[in-house]
Order: sequence, then structure tokens, then C-alpha cells
Amino acid sequence: MWRDLLPVGRDARTGGYRRFAWNAADLECRAWFRAEAARRGLAYEIDRNGNQWAWYGGSAPDADWTPADARDAVVTGSHLDSVPDGGAYDGPLGVISSFAAFDLLVERGAAFHRPLAIVNFGDEEGARFGVACVGSRLAAGVLTSEQARDLRDADGTRLPDAMAAAGYDPEGIGADPELLDRIGCFVELHVEQGRALVDRDAAVGVASAIWPHGRWRFDFRGEANHAGTTRLEDRRDPMLTYATTVLAARKKARLAGAVATFGKVAVEPNGTNAIASLVRGWLDSRAPEEEVLDAVVAEIAKAARERAERDGTGVDVVRESYTPVVEFAGGLRDRIAGHLGGVPVLPTGAGHDAGILSATLPTAMVFVRNPTGVSHSPAESAEMSDCLAGVGALADVLADLLADKPADLIDKGPTA
Amino acid sequence: MWRDLLPVGRDARTGGYRRFAWNAADLECRAWFRAEAARRGLAYEIDRNGNQWAWYGGSAPDADWTPADARDAVVTGSHLDSVPDGGAYDGPLGVISSFAAFDLLVERGAAFHRPLAIVNFGDEEGARFGVACVGSRLAAGVLTSEQARDLRDADGTRLPDAMAAAGYDPEGIGADPELLDRIGCFVELHVEQGRALVDRDAAVGVASAIWPHGRWRFDFRGEANHAGTTRLEDRRDPMLTYATTVLAARKKARLAGAVATFGKVAVEPNGTNAIASLVRGWLDSRAPEEEVLDAVVAEIAKAARERAERDGTGVDVVRESYTPVVEFAGGLRDRIAGHLGGVPVLPTGAGHDAGILSATLPTAMVFVRNPTGVSHSPAESAEMSDCLAGVGALADVLADLLADKPADLIDKGPTA
Repeated sequence: MWRDLLPVGRDARTGGYRRFAWNAADLECRAWFRAEAARRGLAYEIDRNGNQWAWYGGSAPDADWTPADARDAVVTGSHLDSVPDGGAYDGPLGVISSFAAFDLLVERGAAFHRPLAIVNFGDEEGARFGVACVGSRLAAGVLTSEQARDLRDADGTRLPDAMAAAGYDPEGIGADPELLDRIGCFVELHVEQGRALVDRDAAVGVASAIWPHGRWRFDFRGEANHAGTTRLEDRRDPMLTYATTVLAARKKARLAGAVATFGKVAVEPNGTNAIASLVRGWLDSRAPEEEVLDAVVAEIAKAARERAERDGTGVDVVRESYTPVVEFAGGLRDRIAGHLGGVPVLPTGAGHDAGILSATLPTAMVFVRNPTGVSHSPAESAEMSDCLAGVGALADVLADLLADKPADLIDKGPTA
Repeated sequence: MWRDLLPVGRDARTGGYRRFAWNAADLECRAWFRAEAARRGLAYEIDRNGNQWAWYGGSAPDADWTPADARDAVVTGSHLDSVPDGGAYDGPLGVISSFAAFDLLVERGAAFHRPLAIVNFGDEEGARFGVACVGSRLAAGVLTSEQARDLRDADGTRLPDAMAAAGYDPEGIGADPELLDRIGCFVELHVEQGRALVDRDAAVGVASAIWPHGRWRFDFRGEANHAGTTRLEDRRDPMLTYATTVLAARKKARLAGAVATFGKVAVEPNGTNAIASLVRGWLDSRAPEEEVLDAVVAEIAKAARERAERDGTGVDVVRESYTPVVEFAGGLRDRIAGHLGGVPVLPTGAGHDAGILSATLPTAMVFVRNPTGVSHSPAESAEMSDCLAGVGALADVLADLLADKPADLIDKGPTA
């Protein structure tokens, strides 16, 4: 499976992946998913929001069983898209491990007393349209179809037009309660994006919570002018305000035990011999608690405004997305961690579809050790032995969940 | 003339111009130049390096006179390309004023004892291929044809391929001494790019010198990683090193009486939730003397390297272009300033084709007042009365130079 997927959307120069929502590489990944479903005789379905599903009705379903009949299904999977120049594991490891775990269960003759589905959620990274987890947010109704229809990529293409250009009808996008009603729980396997499992010498772990996190766009506005002839005292240079804000973000985050990053910048007119008229910088910030996150971002914005005063520039701050803290369903999490023999249970700073769906369904995550902790980079990696341990753990977890009708065993209670 | 040229290559959103070497807007400007030459019966010529010329043989040339016969010609003109989102005057004012001054001379029945040419130098701003004054640098042999053939734009298109795509044969690019041998002197009219004429309450002025100036590319290299999950102490974030360098550039320039600007940035992978692996920033710096310029840039590079040590990043500094101080030919400059009745004589921080050619020919510049000093911006402006004063001054200067065979009157001596 890896061999087929590895070259898709890989940039020859950087070695990183460029699988963005509905682009050619994404469509190739989607074709791969559909072929893997077909190869196993799984019922293929693409939902109203472009998420792909591969359904198995169970050990002894009715002859006329269809995915629409599913109830209390166990769902596993992840996503196949990437950040710009992303690694091979973030997303695909979860989808590939899901197919591999299914193969293992069939091989072992495991009981399927509940339906199983493998899912590929669309546009998890938000690399093209700026909002992460679009597929799961739409299904859960967290992102409305009106909001989604307004999303544009860097070329100005709207999301529905991108879907239509890829041959998918965007008419029905929006909340999909019928689909979510079929699902009993969702378990997402993912490569770890830090070094906690390395530090604890464990191949796999279970997620306890996702830090609250968000994206803020800072627009620094000044005045374009000639870089050679404009006296320093006559300038209104927003690059200076931006630079000060970048350094303030690091400092405020460090003092608060949070993280804050400016990783994306757009400059106008972006000419070597012209002072910038606009510097647009995107802040990604995350913290263990919402109060801390809000305070850090407020302090960064304050530092930006103070420096703008001095530079004669203006600053607008727009919150583009915000995800509150996610505490994964305690019952499901403890059952999985127990079943895996007391593996580490740890929080993460990364957002995931399992986090989005945790408000609607019991969800859980299994992490696979990342030897360097590096992610969102071509250098992202995982040992083959750890990947196999991940498949084994996922198969064990799925077997446990599929073995009975455990709707009553899983705590569907408060998940926030 | 203005009316035809004004809409060409203007961005509807910003109101700024996007006339870059050999792009569609540039070709439209070139067609305009050729039509203006034809309208006046001037002999049109495009030289080996893509510069456009409109020749007038003089009051009584031989019947079989061609531009190749010209000797001691008086040349005026400027350029038609722009920086990204440039203004309407930087470049075009000089070309339009040249045609208007010629019309005035014909109307006045002025004597043309020497040939006159109006020139549009190609790619003065260097917006597309990163090197300014490509047309005049090639003709003067300051930029070799080998260096020019290696120039690439942001899409990877090489300069010769861009020329060929525009229908121009790039085979002959390179030093053109035969062409320069025809020229006695070059006078370039240009909108001022500062406020010196406003301060001195004068509509026009004459250039004394061009500050030494250059462009340096700073490559800050770090490690791409997940913006949410990577601990601050595990990061190698080049955005921090870049931000520190931006602030250092401003400070070092201020202390030295120079200018230093980061106006252009490129980031990889440039994703909101990824720490950058590469931040590439271009430094434009200028100073009254070369020693000062070199010291300022060395100090900025030192500040960058010191911060890189702390950030775990790397810094490479590449000098992309460097133009030593230009002192305009004293004899020509004084003759022009005297003829214009003692207008201000002032230095400038901006590079020009007249500066490039000053090492080969006697050159001079006439500046037209800029009420705000703003340039390289859609807000660049000039009063119509000042533009007309510029045309009148240029016509007077040309009439004086054309009235005799003053090869011996013009100091062709050291032009540094």
C-alpha cells in the first residue's frame, strides 16, 4: 500500500508532499483509497462533504445490507491530504494502518458484531482554503455550508468550485447527522508530532486531550515607497512592526508555557527596492488551557499595536479559526489504554478530525512513536517496527470494540 | 500620450503598475513607444539588448542617413517598466517628456546640428529577474551575456526564453560598443523620489551623484516542523532570525546615516501550522559613501549570524548586485544646471540607467518635483505644472546641446 501512495504529490525538489484539498495529488490519493476499498470488497461511499468511507457490514449482515443500515459502527481512519511540503506519515499512516488492521482482523477470523468503516476525511490540514478539518467540521455542523461556500484559495477559487472542478457535486455540503448517527465511536491512529513517546520509550500511546488552538491573521499596513530615496524618518514600514511582533510572540508564549508561531507571510508589493505597503502574517498559537491561549494572543496583539504606534503603521487582527480544548471521551480512552496494557496517555498540541468529532461522538486517538518528533516537514519519520506495532495495537482495539454491542459500555457522556 | 499609456499594466485592485520585463504590459508599452516614434517620422530601432530607440538624424542629414551613421548624438529618455505596484511616473515621465520636448523643439524650429535619439531602456527596475538596469548594463558590458542568460524569474523562466517568448531574438545580447559609440551624451529626466525639491521650492533640479547601493539576499535556514506540537526549545525557527535581522538593519542604517530595507520575503513551506524551513529576505541598502554602505551591510550580517547562533539556524548572505557611487560628469552637469538658471543640484539614493552609462558616456539627470516624495507606490504623483516645467527644461537643455557640435565642450573626463 505504501509503495503506491508514496510518490503521489511529492515535490521532487523538497521531498515534501503537496496534497491539497481537491488538487490533482489529492484526487490521486482518493483514487488509491477507493481501489483499496474495492480490493477488500468493502462498500465504498463518498459522503455529502467529500469524505470517503469504506464499509464492512459485519460478520453476518443481511444480504441487502447497505452502509445506510449501519448503527453503532466502529470507525477508524484519518486523512490523506498534507500541509505544504508535509511528511509521508501525518494522515496517511492512519488510513494505511486502518486497512492493514482490517486485513489482520480478517486473517485472525475476528468477530465483527458491529459494522466497521474506514474513513478518509477531506481537507484536514486546511492548506488550500485556510480552515483545518473542513470535512469533519462540515459533517458535524461546526462549519456551516454558508461559511464553507465563502472559503477561497490563494488564487481566489471558491471551495465549491474546486469540488466541482474535481468532479464532485458541492450542492449537498453541510451538517450530516444521518451519517454520524450510524457511528458508535471513532478511533484515529496518527504519527506522534512530538517526542513524548520517545521520552517514555513507548512505541504507541493514547491521547488524553488536544490543546485549545487557533489561527489569527495579522495585517500590518504601512505605505509603499522607494527603498533608496525615502528617509528613514519619513517611512511607515510595516515590516518593522511585523518583525517586532514575531519576536514578541515567541517571548509571550515562552513565558506562558504556550506555543506561538508565525510560519506564513504574504507581502505587498514584495519588491526588493520598495518599502512594503502590507505585511500579512499568520499566527498559530496553542496552550494547555483556553485562558492561557487567550491571554497570550492578547499580549501579542498588544505588542504589535504598541510598535505600530512607533512605526506609523496600522494593525488589524482577525481570528480565522479557534478550537476549544478537547478532552477525549474518558470511557473509550480508558478502555483502549487498558486494553493496550497501560501505554502512555498524553495530550497533544495538534488538531485532528477526532478532536472535531469528539463533541458529537465518543472519539479516541492512538499515537505511533516519532523518533525525531519532526512533523509537517519532509523529515517526518517513523520506524517500520513502530508502524507495525501501531497496526497491531489498532487491530487489538478494533477487535475489542467489534467483539460485542458495547453501546452501553462506552461513556457517551460529556466530552468537552 | 499619457492617456494611451496610463491604463497599460495597471492592477485594478491596487491601482499600481505591473509592467515587468517582457510581460504583456511591457510589450504593450513597447508598442506604444514604437507608435510614438512612427507618428513623428523617427527612425525606430531595437538594439541587441532589447532597448528601443527613436532616431532623428538632424536638421539636414544626408538622404541615405541611418541611425548607424550617428555620431556625437544627444540621447534622452528613460524606461517604461515598473516595480510591482509601481506608480505612473517612475520611468514613463522621462520617456513621455522626451517625446514632448522633441515636439517643442520642432515647433520652435530649433537647430538640430547633431542627431537626437529618444530611448526606452528595457528592464530598468529588475522586478522580474532581480537585477536592475539590465538593458543598459548589458549594452555597457557591466552585465555579461553569460550572467544575463542565467537570470531566472520567480517561475524559473530564463531571461533569454522570456525575450524569445515575447518575439525578440536573444542571440545577440551583450556589450554593444558600436551603439554607444554613436552617442555624445545622455540626459535622463525622472520624477524625483524624495522631497528635496519640495524643501527647496523648485519644480526641477539636476542630479549631482547617485549613492552607492546594492541588493543582498539573506537565506535563513531552519527546520520545518509542526507549529502546534514542537516544543519551543526543540525549534530551529528561521523566522525569528529574520525578524531580528530586519530590526538590526533599521538600527544600523540609522546610526550610519544610510538606508536599509527588507521589502521582499519568500518563505518555505509558508504554511500556517508549520515552522518555516527557509526564510529568504532581500536587503536593499544605500549610503552616501561606499565605505559606509559596506560597513552597514557587514554589521547587519553580523547581527544575523549572532542571532542565528541562538536560534540554531543558518544564514547565507549573497550579494546580488552592487553599484558603486556615481558622480555625474561635472562638465555636462554644470552646463545643464547653468543653462537652467541655477536650479538645485542634488544627490539621490535611486539607481538609474544614466548612472550605469556614466562610466562610458557623459550622462546627466533632470529631476521633476514630487509633492509627496512617494515613489515605487501607486500613490506616486507629480503636478501637471511641474511636469510641463520638466518638459520645458528638457527642451532647453536639448536645444543647447543640439545647437553646436560640442564634443569638445563636454568634459568626457573621469566620471568615476
